[in-house]
Amino acid sequence: MLELFKSIRLDKEDKIPLYTQLYGKIKEMINEGILCADFRLPSVRRLADALHVNRVTVVSAYRQLESEGLVYSKPGSGTYVENAPALTGRSAGKDPDVFLDELYQQDDLSLISNGQIKIDDKTINFASATPTPDLFPVEDFKLVLNEVLERDKGNAFGYQDSQGFYPIRESIYKVLENKIQGVSPESIQVISGAQQGIDIISKALLKQGDCVITESPTYTGAIAVFKSRGAEIIDVEMQESGPDLNILEYSLKQYRPRLIYTIPSFQNPTGYSYSNYKRAQLLNLAEKYNCHIIEDDYVSDLDFEGKNYTPLKAMDKQDRVIFIKSFSKIFMPGLRLGFMVAPRHLQGIILEAKHATDISTSGLIQRAFDLYIRKGFWDRHFKFMYDIYRERYTLAVKSLDRNLPDSATYAKPGGGLNIWLKLPMGISANSLSKHAQAEGIVFAPGKIFYSRNTPQKLDNIRLSFAAADSGQIEKGMEKLCRMIHLFQQRQVSYQNLPVL
Amino acid sequence: MLELFKSIRLDKEDKIPLYTQLYGKIKEMINEGILCADFRLPSVRRLADALHVNRVTVVSAYRQLESEGLVYSKPGSGTYVENAPALTGRSAGKDPDVFLDELYQQDDLSLISNGQIKIDDKTINFASATPTPDLFPVEDFKLVLNEVLERDKGNAFGYQDSQGFYPIRESIYKVLENKIQGVSPESIQVISGAQQGIDIISKALLKQGDCVITESPTYTGAIAVFKSRGAEIIDVEMQESGPDLNILEYSLKQYRPRLIYTIPSFQNPTGYSYSNYKRAQLLNLAEKYNCHIIEDDYVSDLDFEGKNYTPLKAMDKQDRVIFIKSFSKIFMPGLRLGFMVAPRHLQGIILEAKHATDISTSGLIQRAFDLYIRKGFWDRHFKFMYDIYRERYTLAVKSLDRNLPDSATYAKPGGGLNIWLKLPMGISANSLSKHAQAEGIVFAPGKIFYSRNTPQKLDNIRLSFAAADSGQIEKGMEKLCRMIHLFQQRQVSYQNLPVL
Repeated sequence: MLELFKSIRLDKEDKIPLYTQLYGKIKEMINEGILCADFRLPSVRRLADALHVNRVTVVSAYRQLESEGLVYSKPGSGTYVENAPALTGRSAGKDPDVFLDELYQQDDLSLISNGQIKIDDKTINFASATPTPDLFPVEDFKLVLNEVLERDKGNAFGYQDSQGFYPIRESIYKVLENKIQGVSPESIQVISGAQQGIDIISKALLKQGDCVITESPTYTGAIAVFKSRGAEIIDVEMQESGPDLNILEYSLKQYRPRLIYTIPSFQNPTGYSYSNYKRAQLLNLAEKYNCHIIEDDYVSDLDFEGKNYTPLKAMDKQDRVIFIKSFSKIFMPGLRLGFMVAPRHLQGIILEAKHATDISTSGLIQRAFDLYIRKGFWDRHFKFMYDIYRERYTLAVKSLDRNLPDSATYAKPGGGLNIWLKLPMGISANSLSKHAQAEGIVFAPGKIFYSRNTPQKLDNIRLSFAAADSGQIEKGMEKLCRMIHLFQQRQVSYQNLPVL
Repeated sequence: MLELFKSIRLDKEDKIPLYTQLYGKIKEMINEGILCADFRLPSVRRLADALHVNRVTVVSAYRQLESEGLVYSKPGSGTYVENAPALTGRSAGKDPDVFLDELYQQDDLSLISNGQIKIDDKTINFASATPTPDLFPVEDFKLVLNEVLERDKGNAFGYQDSQGFYPIRESIYKVLENKIQGVSPESIQVISGAQQGIDIISKALLKQGDCVITESPTYTGAIAVFKSRGAEIIDVEMQESGPDLNILEYSLKQYRPRLIYTIPSFQNPTGYSYSNYKRAQLLNLAEKYNCHIIEDDYVSDLDFEGKNYTPLKAMDKQDRVIFIKSFSKIFMPGLRLGFMVAPRHLQGIILEAKHATDISTSGLIQRAFDLYIRKGFWDRHFKFMYDIYRERYTLAVKSLDRNLPDSATYAKPGGGLNIWLKLPMGISANSLSKHAQAEGIVFAPGKIFYSRNTPQKLDNIRLSFAAADSGQIEKGMEKLCRMIHLFQQRQVSYQNLPVL
């Protein structure tokens, strides 16, 4: 079919930009019915090579088509001709992990523009590890917002202290007090979400060519930051009780990294946690090899089976751990609010990096959330969300235990928002994902959580249960298990598989 | 006096961290009256050298003392023993420029913690180029916030499109439409303030060692970002009608920069603007030497004398300009909201960098501000602020023309928020600043706006009139002029000058 596109003639001398010309030609082909609904357009690379144009030209043309609703994109797959003449509105929410997936698809840059996984009301969403808007405490938040505006008036909108509004640092300190000793309002740095925290630390500590150790797989947003900073990422495989300590030490010795990035409890995407022994050893190794640790406290509070893991920061006698926590996962992701606790000797450079990044986090949001904590709303809402997530977790685990073929395995995480499923040998996560999408189930293929494109021995998928309700979890998990079963029986690729 | 400190003995074998030990020793000296009020502590570097400890140790000790109100810091000057046992509360707002000043004082890192210039109600503030909270449209904003919460409910708090909430991109597009042709909602990228915009562009375009041309002097926040990215900053002197084109071309040829960072209208800090001829030439040069331009549209709308400068982006036929605009300067700085219009071929990598930086800008703030524009509040508020700023500008210029000694000069900017004053030969901005602070007037010394510590032939100061009311401007400018006059008469340094 590439032949069809090779016949496109673009005029480099023309005043009309090349991408506009290309866009016009493809649009014509769609309107004339030469390209029918769901036809997959050539990859950006292939078309660029075929037409001897820059990839950017093709990306721009595809984006233009997409913005007009003439084509749509599927993560990890490509760009397709739309059925109807116009797209419906963009989906409001998306999970940052899944978005990053698209960025890594070098051939599908056009997906960037608005390439969320298409999720409608009927989709069972196991891809998103964040709560759905119906669970957000809008009324309570409205109340505190208004109270803050009444109380602080214009001051809520002036430049804020780059370290954070002092009272919210006090409030956070009180929330942390029992978990981590030695924290004070002075040691807390407010950030606009965990993603910004990782970005700021990278600015403060990493130079181009520095090494960073990360678990593998890990949070894609962290990989993106380290790469953007020009750092070398050293993967250490994440196992059920944390990484192999020998391998970790070998990597530390060999690469002398500046940083170790870790999610020690209910890791993203695996759900695995470091044993307390490995936590202690990790700290010892950081001291021995003189590096700092970013502890991304992703969802350690969602401990459904009394694991009681100790935060690294609470064991951090040598002051090597930078503790990051976002309020997104449990509260409201769009709020863009989180905090860090950094070693004392790093606080200055971290503050400087925060200032250069965005001067300060929104004063209004900081003040409102401070009041939200002070009024006890946070405690109450946390309990509410904890119960919901626990129920979903329990249902997901129960359904998997009942329906999953023996050849597919997972380790029960005991908490968090994700389950990391190893598919049976020979079944590709990509194929399963495409098939599931056609059946109205979405999830994140495992490969997006790896920093390198090394082939994995087994294919994994991440099943998140934060955005699906009980009914959807039961139905979706069962359906997915049946699909895996069927895939396994046939051991054929998606292309040859009849619709279930 | 350094001898006194050299006698301090720290025990490196002790379990108590060195900085805590140092803090304790100095605290003792203060409590025992050995160090009296307003005594200047040794600089961080000197004390660190004298005690053979890391500078971080000294910084940490000073911060600890400062956080307990035992010492205070003066920007550009040092750390001093406090008069009273405890400090009053931190000032809520500050100008990012002035803050950055402190960061550049290598010897005064302790200022970072909470080292704002001390500003109380009586201070005449010519240091801040942002409006004061009493001018913020709090009631209108409260109204739109509540309307958005009523309308969008939880969706206002979900993850947002990284490019920005679509309707606000439409609203911004309509605001821009008449000024810059060819913009569309698709070409707009929402950012959390101009500072973030510069940071994101640097992430997208700069590698360590790349060159960036900036005007000299320029906005300190931009310098901080480029430095943080490991870029080499090439200064080109800012003159009254923009930089010398020969020097600019020489720098382009010599250094092959990736980026030119410019504030073409009512530049910060000089208030100077590029002539329309220089604007056109700048674009030609960028094309010739294949680099991109960041156009920081700082306050081009505050055009008080009908200058009608054309934005570079409006003349940008080759699509080389990244246009950045913040709503801070005219609206509310703590809102953290702005936008970019980037060349089409850069939109993908800029979006990727935005995502890695903070995923998205607060959805609530975007939605509320969208409604604020749609209801016509923005237009109305802009006119309100414009009139106020114009009055202040007129008063400031009038007062300077009347009172300034002939040997001090400035170029009437015709707009913006700043006046760049060249002090008479021999008068140091630092000395004047110290003396003025003692008299209740603060302003930004010129040297903080330079990327290098090259000595300037003449000393400059930036006088901003955004945060002072009419009465303060008249009184403050007159007083300042008198001070300059006196300084000049005596031609002596501040140290020997009796209190006026």
